[in-house]
Amino acid sequence: MIPDALHIELGRRYHFAASHRLHSVKLTEEENRRIYGKCNNAYGHGHNYTVEVRLSGAVDPAIGMIANLADLDAFVNEQVIEPFDHHSLQDEVSTFREIVPTTENLCMEIFQRLKAFPHAKLESVRVVETSNNSFEYAGD
Amino acid sequence: MIPDALHIELGRRYHFAASHRLHSVKLTEEENRRIYGKCNNAYGHGHNYTVEVRLSGAVDPAIGMIANLADLDAFVNEQVIEPFDHHSLQDEVSTFREIVPTTENLCMEIFQRLKAFPHAKLESVRVVETSNNSFEYAGD
Amino acid sequence: MIPDALHIELGRRYHFAASHRLHSVKLTEEENRRIYGKCNNAYGHGHNYTVEVRLSGAVDPAIGMIANLADLDAFVNEQVIEPFDHHSLQDEVSTFREIVPTTENLCMEIFQRLKAFPHAKLESVRVVETSNNSFEYAGD
Amino acid sequence: MIPDALHIELGRRYHFAASHRLHSVKLTEEENRRIYGKCNNAYGHGHNYTVEVRLSGAVDPAIGMIANLADLDAFVNEQVIEPFDHHSLQDEVSTFREIVPTTENLCMEIFQRLKAFPHAKLESVRVVETSNNSFEYAGD
Amino acid sequence: MIPDALHIELGRRYHFAASHRLHSVKLTEEENRRIYGKCNNAYGHGHNYTVEVRLSGAVDPAIGMIANLADLDAFVNEQVIEPFDHHSLQDEVSTFREIVPTTENLCMEIFQRLKAFPHAKLESVRVVETSNNSFEYAGD
Amino acid sequence: MIPDALHIELGRRYHFAASHRLHSVKLTEEENRRIYGKCNNAYGHGHNYTVEVRLSGAVDPAIGMIANLADLDAFVNEQVIEPFDHHSLQDEVSTFREIVPTTENLCMEIFQRLKAFPHAKLESVRVVETSNNSFEYAGD
Repeated sequence: MIPDALHIELGRRYHFAASHRLHSVKLTEEENRRIYGKCNNAYGHGHNYTVEVRLSGAVDPAIGMIANLADLDAFVNEQVIEPFDHHSLQDEVSTFREIVPTTENLCMEIFQRLKAFPHAKLESVRVVETSNNSFEYAGD
Repeated sequence: MIPDALHIELGRRYHFAASHRLHSVKLTEEENRRIYGKCNNAYGHGHNYTVEVRLSGAVDPAIGMIANLADLDAFVNEQVIEPFDHHSLQDEVSTFREIVPTTENLCMEIFQRLKAFPHAKLESVRVVETSNNSFEYAGD
Repeated sequence: MIPDALHIELGRRYHFAASHRLHSVKLTEEENRRIYGKCNNAYGHGHNYTVEVRLSGAVDPAIGMIANLADLDAFVNEQVIEPFDHHSLQDEVSTFREIVPTTENLCMEIFQRLKAFPHAKLESVRVVETSNNSFEYAGD
Repeated sequence: MIPDALHIELGRRYHFAASHRLHSVKLTEEENRRIYGKCNNAYGHGHNYTVEVRLSGAVDPAIGMIANLADLDAFVNEQVIEPFDHHSLQDEVSTFREIVPTTENLCMEIFQRLKAFPHAKLESVRVVETSNNSFEYAGD
Repeated sequence: MIPDALHIELGRRYHFAASHRLHSVKLTEEENRRIYGKCNNAYGHGHNYTVEVRLSGAVDPAIGMIANLADLDAFVNEQVIEPFDHHSLQDEVSTFREIVPTTENLCMEIFQRLKAFPHAKLESVRVVETSNNSFEYAGD
Repeated sequence: MIPDALHIELGRRYHFAASHRLHSVKLTEEENRRIYGKCNNAYGHGHNYTVEVRLSGAVDPAIGMIANLADLDAFVNEQVIEPFDHHSLQDEVSTFREIVPTTENLCMEIFQRLKAFPHAKLESVRVVETSNNSFEYAGD
């Protein structure tokens, strides 16, 4: 027998492809090259990014769900996929004109954009940059 | 040097294939169609479900393990794989005659069935429904 | 230097979730149970199916592509995903009212439905039923 | 008992991250937008590319191998990974200044660069652009 | 409409874990070290091997299958999984007392052991040693 | 807008191949066989192990990173990959001469070796032994 209205977590994955270049205006040319290595190449490079969103909520006993995935998909598409997918992060996303588009910063930016989702609580955002590399942010 | 008897977590994956149809007796026909969309199709559909079980325990220093995997496998097979694999959730699992077999409810039902495992503490159950979609429940 | 107009193969994956029951009208009840085992359960079960389509063609030198993926996606969606996804194969796809919806037959049915794609030659269709199980058909 | 010197195929995967923009000088601005869609965005985007190389050869009975993987790795790194990884295909690889860096053309360019490997016969090159999309070229 | 009795290919994956050491009696100590590198370490190392078996056959129209997977599983378990899984290849499998247990030789040995399967034609055996490395043998 | 210096987690995967045999000097021969089953085979077996390291830290606003991955890779290679990769755990790693090289103990040993990383806080170590089996340790 399943108790009513339990707290449960939903994990959902989204995908986008983007280019970025790691170059900080707060560092000298030489520091940029030393710290970022080949990620500092002038013409940039790119990745297939995977975004794993985790949300929590109570399960509505009549419906058996914590949130409608169609609502979540529409929100993530508008906030993240449309502005980031097939774009250059530092050239076309305003946040990354000022700060370096490292995956750490990308992860926090996506968290800021998704935390207003009205139908469940955003628990964390994980951004997978390559099969061996990921970052996770759970707010402060 | 490894200290004795530390708390550690074991994660183990199990797989089953089942069919389900999302249809709540607490909703009208029109609400069922609107909320569940194609998941409300009258003849049902199905998935390859992956169940990721996490258990914690102290490591027995003589043996170096927190639980015997053969014991865990036998318990999960009896409680979950045998009754769910190659079955229809709403037609053949009694819990889902009364409540909707959403993956949220499936995840909580599996947690209830596994929490009595005698040799380690059940920490959480995650059910992966598709490569982009999962639910995790850690009890209340 | 890349030569013009070479023959190349495109592989593209599609996904659908469906239920099926293996039961042949050409076999007795006892034969059905013995041959299909738990796949013969009366209420059916289901899978997340992956379809890997391979097509070949010459690369148009002006465009650098053998086929427009948007055209291919529209064709596969109309012929396969819409009629199969979130449906019961034997109850809702007319071919499988007469023949058993084994993955072998499913693979051949998908090949028949896709071989008329006008912009490239269909080479093969592979259907992945579980992570350990797949079938591939390349026509006759 | 294993017979001597049999023909066998070796498959080996390499990974690189690069940016590209699909824009053909043989097409008008409007054709570029219509044919390439969001892949034509002015600032480019990027991918994690996987390259699957297949080579064949006889197995040297004394050594039991068809080629030394260290030799193959050195060759692929020099010919493909160094010039492509963390670079912009159309800005930094000379071939793609003249022809569009579609994955079809990328796949053929990699084949041309690898076919001179001296210790085994190159059978095919497959480039995986996203988890659902790949191209394979086996020469002409 | 699906035509009768078509040729189709079945792919099925099996898994085993084994240890091996690359050391050829036909080579000097120095050659063994130079050619095999760390794979020549005296105490051996190990892998999770995946074996992908491909078989072809006609589809029996009454049953819709080319072979019963239970028959295939029993045959592969007896011929390959039981003698190789959780064993040392060079110490416990007689073939590898005489020849080096490279993955090339392992792949050919598995092909020899499986080609007598009575219910379908063995087309090829692929052995995946690591996520980046595999060998495939299709007989001579 | 991204706030300065937030706590974020970095996850990074490393891979090594090793052999092990489960045999405890604190148990009788019969107990070793009963408890460890085929893992107690005298000649050992092996695995492709994946190590998932999680570290946390503040993001340096000038650089946008919590730690330089080159520093982390050098540390993990020296502490774990070099001594474990292509080696026999119980024969060549001193810790496992005294204690059983179960994956639980391996996971804790790796945590002990990595917790001194100077540039970020080690949160947890997860060791994946097979695709269905993993252990995670977060210290005490």
